[in-house]
Amino acid sequence: MTDRVSIVEVGPRDGLQNEPYTIPTEVKVELIDRLSATGLPVIEATSFVSAPAIPQLADAEDVYSRIERRAGVRYPVLVPNLKGYERARAVGAEEIAVFTAASEAFNQKNINCSIAESMERFKPVVERARADGVRVRGYVSTVLGCPYQGEVPVSEVVRVAEALDQAGCAEISLGDTIGVGTPAKARAVIETVAKSIPVERLAVHFHDTYGQALANIHACIEAGIRTVDSSVAGLGGCPYARGATGNVATEDVVYMLQGLGLDCGVDLKALAQVGDWIAGELGRPRSRTGQAILKRN
Amino acid sequence: MTDRVSIVEVGPRDGLQNEPYTIPTEVKVELIDRLSATGLPVIEATSFVSAPAIPQLADAEDVYSRIERRAGVRYPVLVPNLKGYERARAVGAEEIAVFTAASEAFNQKNINCSIAESMERFKPVVERARADGVRVRGYVSTVLGCPYQGEVPVSEVVRVAEALDQAGCAEISLGDTIGVGTPAKARAVIETVAKSIPVERLAVHFHDTYGQALANIHACIEAGIRTVDSSVAGLGGCPYARGATGNVATEDVVYMLQGLGLDCGVDLKALAQVGDWIAGELGRPRSRTGQAILKRN
Repeated sequence: MTDRVSIVEVGPRDGLQNEPYTIPTEVKVELIDRLSATGLPVIEATSFVSAPAIPQLADAEDVYSRIERRAGVRYPVLVPNLKGYERARAVGAEEIAVFTAASEAFNQKNINCSIAESMERFKPVVERARADGVRVRGYVSTVLGCPYQGEVPVSEVVRVAEALDQAGCAEISLGDTIGVGTPAKARAVIETVAKSIPVERLAVHFHDTYGQALANIHACIEAGIRTVDSSVAGLGGCPYARGATGNVATEDVVYMLQGLGLDCGVDLKALAQVGDWIAGELGRPRSRTGQAILKRN
Repeated sequence: MTDRVSIVEVGPRDGLQNEPYTIPTEVKVELIDRLSATGLPVIEATSFVSAPAIPQLADAEDVYSRIERRAGVRYPVLVPNLKGYERARAVGAEEIAVFTAASEAFNQKNINCSIAESMERFKPVVERARADGVRVRGYVSTVLGCPYQGEVPVSEVVRVAEALDQAGCAEISLGDTIGVGTPAKARAVIETVAKSIPVERLAVHFHDTYGQALANIHACIEAGIRTVDSSVAGLGGCPYARGATGNVATEDVVYMLQGLGLDCGVDLKALAQVGDWIAGELGRPRSRTGQAILKRN
C-alpha cells in the first residue's frame, strides 16, 4: 500500500451546485484556478447536466472554457448522458464522471429512473468515453443510507459498483450522500466492495451531516482506501437529500492526512486561504482547520 | 472488552468556563438537570477553582447545591487544591477531579507551577479524598501538543499519568487540550500509556479545533478506550490555549457510538434538544448531529 493519498476536490461541482443562489461564472473560475495552485491533483470542475435540472450549473461550458489548465492537474466533469458527454467534449474535457445510486428509491427521485435504467443510461457514455481515450470515474451514491428508503443493502452497493466496473470505469467513488454512516459500517462497505474491485480503484465520498465524515475517512484509509473526495470549506450538500449538510472539508482532510504521515501534495495554508475566500464570497462558515490556521471564525 | 462506552459530560464545567460572559446560575443548574434526564451517567458539574482565576465559576457552591441529584448519575467536580476540596465537600460533592498537564510550559502558564510542583499540589488532595472515600479522576492536558512548547514527548505523558495513578486516581483522562492531534498519534499515546495503566482506567478528552476529535475518539476506541469526555453542543474551549475551539459535541459522539453498536445509555433525541436549548441560550452554533436530528441550523 502506498503512503500517498489522492484528494479529489469536488467543491466547484458538488459544492457549488447546492448553493441557493446563482454564483457568478467568474467566481467559479477563480475558485478552480485558486484551488489548482494549492497542489490539488484533481478538481471536478463542473457538471454537464441539463440546465433546467440544476440551474446553478447552466454555465458549465463557460466555466470549463475559462479555467486555466495547470500542468499536472486533472479537471474531470460530471456527465449524465451522451448529450452531456458531447457538450463536455466540445469544450475539451478529457475526463468525465458518471453517476448512479445504490438505492432504488433515490435513483427514482433523483434522476427519475430505476437502477437498471440508470445503468443502461451510463453504459453507452462509458463505452463512448473509452473509445475516445477518456478516463471515466463512476459515482455510487447513498451507499450507507437513503433519505427515502432508509437502509441500503450492501449487496446493492456491490451490484452497482460492479456494473460501473464492468462498464469500464477506471475509478469508483462510493458516496454516503446523506452523511448517515459511522466508521465500522463505512469500513465494512469498503471491505465488501473490495472483494470484487481492487481497493486501489475505489474512492470514498463523505458528507458531514452528523459530524462523522473524518472518522469514516480514517476507517476507510485503514481499510486501504487511497483516494478521498472532499470539498474546500466543506461546500455543498445534496439538493435532493433533505437535511444533508456539506461535504467533508478538504482542509480538515489534508490536516488529518499530514498527521497520519500520508502525503497528498497539498499546501494546507494556501488551501485554507482559498477556503476562507470562498466561504466569505458565499457567506458560509469556514472549515475548522481553516479557522484554526488563519485564526478566524 | 465491554461493548459499553461511558460518556463523561463536561459541558457544564469545561464548556461554560470558557464562555465570554457571565451565565446565570439558574441556566447552569437547568443545563445539568436537563442533561441528567437524558441518560448521561456522569456530569462534571462545576469547578472549585478560585473565583478571581475563573469568574465564570464563582458560583460553584450555589450550582452544586441547587442541582437535582438524580439516582444513578454521578456529579464530579474539579478541584485545584485542598481549599477547593474543602469547598466541594462542604456542599456534598462525592467525586472530584484533579488536573495537571504533560507540558512544562503549559503548567507554568496555566497554573503557574512546574509539573513537579503540580504533582505536589494534587497529591495531598488525592490522599485526602481517598481517606474520605471520594473517587478521584485525574486530568492530563496537552497530551498531543502544547500551545507554548509545541511537541509534548509521550514519555512526559506517561510520567504524569503514572504519577496520578500512583497518587490514587481511579481514572485518568488524557486530553488533547488544543485539538492538534490526529488518529494515529492519538492511538499511539493511548497504547503507550496503557502499558503501565490498564486501558479500562483511561479516558480521552478531545477538542475539535481541526475537526479531528471524532476520528481520534474512534481510533482510541479501537485501542480499547471505553470512557470518553464530551460536551453537549460542543460547548467550550480553553481559556489559556489560543485558537482552541470547542470540545467534541456529545451528540456527535453518541451518534457514532450508536452506529458502532456501542451502548452508552443516552437518549440521543433528548440530548439533541438539550444541546439546541443551551446553544440558543448562549448564541452558539448547534452540533452537527443536533442540526440533523432537529432539522435546524
